[in-house]
Formats: sequence, C-alpha cells, structure tokens
Amino acid sequence: MKNRRDFLKTAGLMSSSVIIPSVLGSCINTEESSSKNSGNSKVMQLSYKPYELELTHVFTLAGSSRRTTPVMLTQIHFDGLVGYGEASMPPYLGESHLTVEAFLKKVDLSQFNDPFQLEDIIEYIDGIAPGNYAAKAAVDIALHDLVGKLLNQPWYKIWGLNPDKVPDTSFTIGIDTPDVVKMKTREAAPYNILKIKLGHDTDREMVKAIRGITDKPLCVDVNQGWKDKEKALDMIYWLEEQGVVFVEQPMPVDAVDDMAWLTANCPLPTIADEALQGPADIKKLYGVYDGINIKLMKCGGMRAAHKMANSAIGMGMEVMLGCMTETSCAVTAMAHMGHLARWADLDGNLLINNDVFDGVKVIDGKVILPDKPGIGVVPV
Amino acid sequence: MKNRRDFLKTAGLMSSSVIIPSVLGSCINTEESSSKNSGNSKVMQLSYKPYELELTHVFTLAGSSRRTTPVMLTQIHFDGLVGYGEASMPPYLGESHLTVEAFLKKVDLSQFNDPFQLEDIIEYIDGIAPGNYAAKAAVDIALHDLVGKLLNQPWYKIWGLNPDKVPDTSFTIGIDTPDVVKMKTREAAPYNILKIKLGHDTDREMVKAIRGITDKPLCVDVNQGWKDKEKALDMIYWLEEQGVVFVEQPMPVDAVDDMAWLTANCPLPTIADEALQGPADIKKLYGVYDGINIKLMKCGGMRAAHKMANSAIGMGMEVMLGCMTETSCAVTAMAHMGHLARWADLDGNLLINNDVFDGVKVIDGKVILPDKPGIGVVPV
Repeated sequence: MKNRRDFLKTAGLMSSSVIIPSVLGSCINTEESSSKNSGNSKVMQLSYKPYELELTHVFTLAGSSRRTTPVMLTQIHFDGLVGYGEASMPPYLGESHLTVEAFLKKVDLSQFNDPFQLEDIIEYIDGIAPGNYAAKAAVDIALHDLVGKLLNQPWYKIWGLNPDKVPDTSFTIGIDTPDVVKMKTREAAPYNILKIKLGHDTDREMVKAIRGITDKPLCVDVNQGWKDKEKALDMIYWLEEQGVVFVEQPMPVDAVDDMAWLTANCPLPTIADEALQGPADIKKLYGVYDGINIKLMKCGGMRAAHKMANSAIGMGMEVMLGCMTETSCAVTAMAHMGHLARWADLDGNLLINNDVFDGVKVIDGKVILPDKPGIGVVPV
Repeated sequence: MKNRRDFLKTAGLMSSSVIIPSVLGSCINTEESSSKNSGNSKVMQLSYKPYELELTHVFTLAGSSRRTTPVMLTQIHFDGLVGYGEASMPPYLGESHLTVEAFLKKVDLSQFNDPFQLEDIIEYIDGIAPGNYAAKAAVDIALHDLVGKLLNQPWYKIWGLNPDKVPDTSFTIGIDTPDVVKMKTREAAPYNILKIKLGHDTDREMVKAIRGITDKPLCVDVNQGWKDKEKALDMIYWLEEQGVVFVEQPMPVDAVDDMAWLTANCPLPTIADEALQGPADIKKLYGVYDGINIKLMKCGGMRAAHKMANSAIGMGMEVMLGCMTETSCAVTAMAHMGHLARWADLDGNLLINNDVFDGVKVIDGKVILPDKPGIGVVPV
C-alpha cells in the first residue's frame, strides 16, 4: 500500500511530463505512446496502474455482496502537467483489470496534438471498441483533469457552475438486520439524506428500522428487485408516507411498459439506473422514468455525463449523480457537475479505507469541491 | 458611422474596465452598475449602444421585407477585460431598441463577483422578465466573451470542439424574379450550399432558376408558408429530386399533428425554426420535427444554445445553427459551437454593409473561426 501511495505522490509532484521509469515505479505506459513519443513532452502519454479498493463494510446489493472493488488508476502526461483518471470495475458490470488493460493498450493519443479537442479525442476513444465504459471513463477523466489544468481552472468553473449548489450527498445504508441497520443509521449522522437498497423481503423492516432512528429524507434503490407493477405501486405509496423522496430502478430494465405505467401512476419520481448507459439512451427513457442516475463508469466519462445532464434537463427529466465504489479521483470528477443535479449519491470514496487521492470532502453532509485546477485531486 | 466605429475600436483597446465617459462616447451604462460600482474594476459593468444594420439587399421573407435591422451592441467590463455582445431585433420578433434598453436597465451584475458562475448569472438574467430573448442574448454573449478572455482561450476550445468541423455555411438567396434569382445564385459562387426561402406561388420557379445555374445542395426554408400537409408532402418529394437536403419550418407552428405526420412521411429531414424558442421546447418538438434550428436571438444566448445542441443530439435530432442579420459579433459567437451541428446557416454578417466587428470569415464557403480568446471578435 505504502509503495503505491508513494508512487502517486511522487508522480503528482513531477514537474516534467517525460516518463522517468524510476519515478513512476510499476506504472505501465501504453505501448504506442511510450514507443513512439519518448522524450516528446508535447505529446499526451497515457499510463495506468491496477489497484484494489478495500471496502469498509461488506457491500450488499439485491443479488450479490463483496469486500473489494478493482480499479485502474490512469495518468496522462502532457507538457509538464499530469491529468489523473480512474476506472472502477464492480464485477457485475463485466469489466476487470484485464479488460481495462487490454482496452488502454489500444489507446494511441499521439495522433492528437491538442488535448482541448475533447469531442474528437473522446469520439476516437469511444470508437476503439464497444462497451468498456469504465476503461473509457479512465481516459476521459484524465483528459479532463489535464485540460482543466491547461485552463488553470476547476471544471465547475469551466462549466459555469456554482460549487455551493452541489446537492447534499446521500449515504447508503446496506441491507442488514434491523439492529445493524439502526447502528449504520446512527453512524450516518453527518449525512442529511440517506439511501437504502430495497428489493428484499425485509424492505418494510429496513425502512422502519431507519425511521426508528431518524426522519431524514430517504432515497430508495431497488436495483430491479420488484417484478409486479401493482405491488410496486402499493409499496411506493407506503414509501411516500415514510418520507422517501424518489425510487431508483424499481423494476427490471426490460419491463418497459410496466415501468412507464408505474411512473405515470406513482406519487414519487422514478429514476433509471441500470436502464441507462450513455447519452443515446435518454430518448428511450423519456416517458418511462422521471429521471436518470448518471455515473461516469456507465456513460464513459465526464463529457458524456455532462451532455446527459443537460440533455435530461432539456427534456424536463430529473438528474441524479451517482458513482461506484471509487477513489476520490472519480467521485470528485463527477461532483464538479453537481449544480446540474437535483440529487447526488457521491459516497463511493467514503466506503473505502485505502483511498489514494485527496479531493472532494463531505462536511455536515454538504459536498465541498476542491478549488484547484482540473478535477482538483491530489495524490496522498 | 465613423464615430460609432471609432467608439468601439477605442473601447476595445482600453486596458482598464473603469468606464471613462469621454472614451466610451455615447455608450450607455446600466444605472445600477454605473451608480454603485464606479471605480471598482472587479465588478462587472454592462454598457450598451443602439445601432442600425444596413442590409446589402432588401430582405424578403414569406410575409415581409426590409432594408435595415436594429441591433444593440453590449459590453461587459471586468478586471481590465471587455466582453462584447449583441442583440439583433428583426421587427417581426417583437423586440426593439426600446425594449432591449428597458431590459438592460434592469440588469444588475454587481451582485455577482465571479463571471465564471454563468449558470447562476444567466438564470438571474432569464428571470428578470419573460421573453426578451435578444436582450438576454446580448448579456449572455458579452459574458461568454469575457469568461473566454479570463480563460485565455476561444470558446470552441473551452467546449472541446474542433474548429475545422464547423459545417460550411449556407448562403440565402432571397425571393425574387427568376432573372434576379439567377444573378444572386451566380453571386453566391463562393458558397458550397445555398438556402432558399419558399412558401410563395413561385416556389418551383425559384428552384428551377437556381438549378439552371448550379447543382449545389439546397436548403429550403418555408417560414410556415405551406398550409396543406398533402401538398407539402408532394412538394418535398419534388424538392428531394431537385437536390434539396432539408426543409425548415414547412408548416405553421400550431399545425403540430400535421407536422408530425409530414415528418413521419416525407423523405427529407424537417427542421423546426419558428416552432422553437429555448431549451424547454425540445421535448415538444421531439417526434414532430427531425431537427432544430438554434439561433442565439431566439434562445437567449450561447449557454442555452450549447445546451440545446447537446440536448437535441442526445435525443437523436439534427442540429442546425442559424442567425438573424447580425454583426460578426453574434455570428462568430454561434460559429464556435459549429462542430456540434450538421448544418450551419451563418450568413447574417455577410448580408450587411456596416459590420463593426472583425470575426468569423467565410473562405471558399468554409467557416473560419478566429483563434483569439473568448468569442474572438475585434472592433473595426
């Protein structure tokens, strides 16, 4: 662990972008950039490093549980600056250290001489292979960090957004016995809005356990767990009485007609999560869900996420920002566009005990953005 | 004329943002900013000046013709920099020197200490009064020019766009006798795509006159001129045979069902113009038109226009960028987002003989963006 942190710390303090193997340690350069461009500091050089996040609590979804999440840390060096990025690969999404490494090895940024041309570069990245959204996000985030540093401003400013208007982040209470749920709810005292994962037989018990401790607003994520639309509707009416503010992915992704019916009839906003990948999906979700949960690892990065937020707002849909378990790198990257969202679920970095970046903070439930250029994270 | 140009030239070369009446000549400061903030260069100061554009040719739409267009030139001074903006008020849209001046007098930018907070500032501007889109655009463009100068980059770079991917602009051939149309078509030799205004009894004659001279692609703007959907469909089939690439606003704005039928059945893309105002309208047009014609003076400025372009792309709709008769200030501002569009109709500054800015150029039909910071225009 120490070595990895030292590597990042040192790399972050490098004043030159020339890759010096002894400093970067075990960081792996993509073949193309390292072979073609060694010594040319005006060419973007991508490097990456596998890492394993350790979760503070076992993480339980409807259907699986785990203790670690693999991530790939990326860097793009250019003209004396370093942009940091990250891919997070929760196993149920199908990406891994191996797939991300295979993807990154195909990336050749040497064909672009201007990092500012994000539309073209990201179109190229997107065209390398279908899928691989986390791998694409790892390049996209590092590019954005680099461009923000070239502009010498944080991304919230470049996007014209107010850092004080990021919604308070929700904090997730995992599925567990009532006593453990109550304990976790007490631990979540610093947060102003809580999120619970439902879709089990114990749903009402979970909610009641939390309501025994606090009347804070609750968000509900069902992860496709409800199969019957009438029962889902009854449950949502009950949840509304319990102070729930929205319901995320209540039904299976392919239950489109049932979901449209539920959205039209239920008293709470419905939010698409698994039903949503990238910008092209919004038109499929319009009229089916009230809003979308945008995650960098689903859509391929900050550029797609920002487009999706504006697209959804234009269509009158609600915007929620989410994350995977991630270091502060990717969570901070997403938080920069918080002003565009009604809800933020940006607790991924709070659930791990071996973060390697210092970035966004949560203080009294409020999301505090760093005001440094780019995404503003610093290796620790 | 000379005085006005001198005013702008001198103002553009000012190194301080403190308003010096003798230099700014007849430029009018908004009451709030001039009274509260004189001498404070870290406060945004808005000033404006009425101007009248002289059209090279009489401009004829379906229903009206005119020789001049009133505009309001704006400036925002901040910290030694000047941002330029403009409102253009074609009379049929209801704004005028008087309405724009009345609006600008209500604008108090002194409450914002950071020009980067465009989302908040433009939300405030938008909330001052309903409508007044040209007046709002005049503030929005000047703000963007200022922020681009603070970032020291042109807007196409800040937006991550490629200046070489702005579509070739169309050039409008006004309605006239076949001989005059032929003459105008010959004069349009430098342009690679032509636009014609149809909706008169002479529509087929117009097209045939142009086709007697050139086989360049044609865009058709009907300005709501066709009232019968079956006849419109027949006409569009004929236009397709004539090499027309899209049809803009073929039917009246309120003929929504007929328009949706026409879009579903006709062989060319249909584009909404008068049916579209700002970002909130896109959801009404989805399924009714294939695409949208975004104009700064309709939507209230660069920020709304950029959001609309991304929103439309997200919904799978075509994007066209249009303009009014404007100086190179507003036309250049719009051209920066050209990469996002499939078609550009950015000839507004080419139709006047008393432009007061040097900005975007059209060379061999290609749109050449200035690479200066902000919108990159310089007073001439």
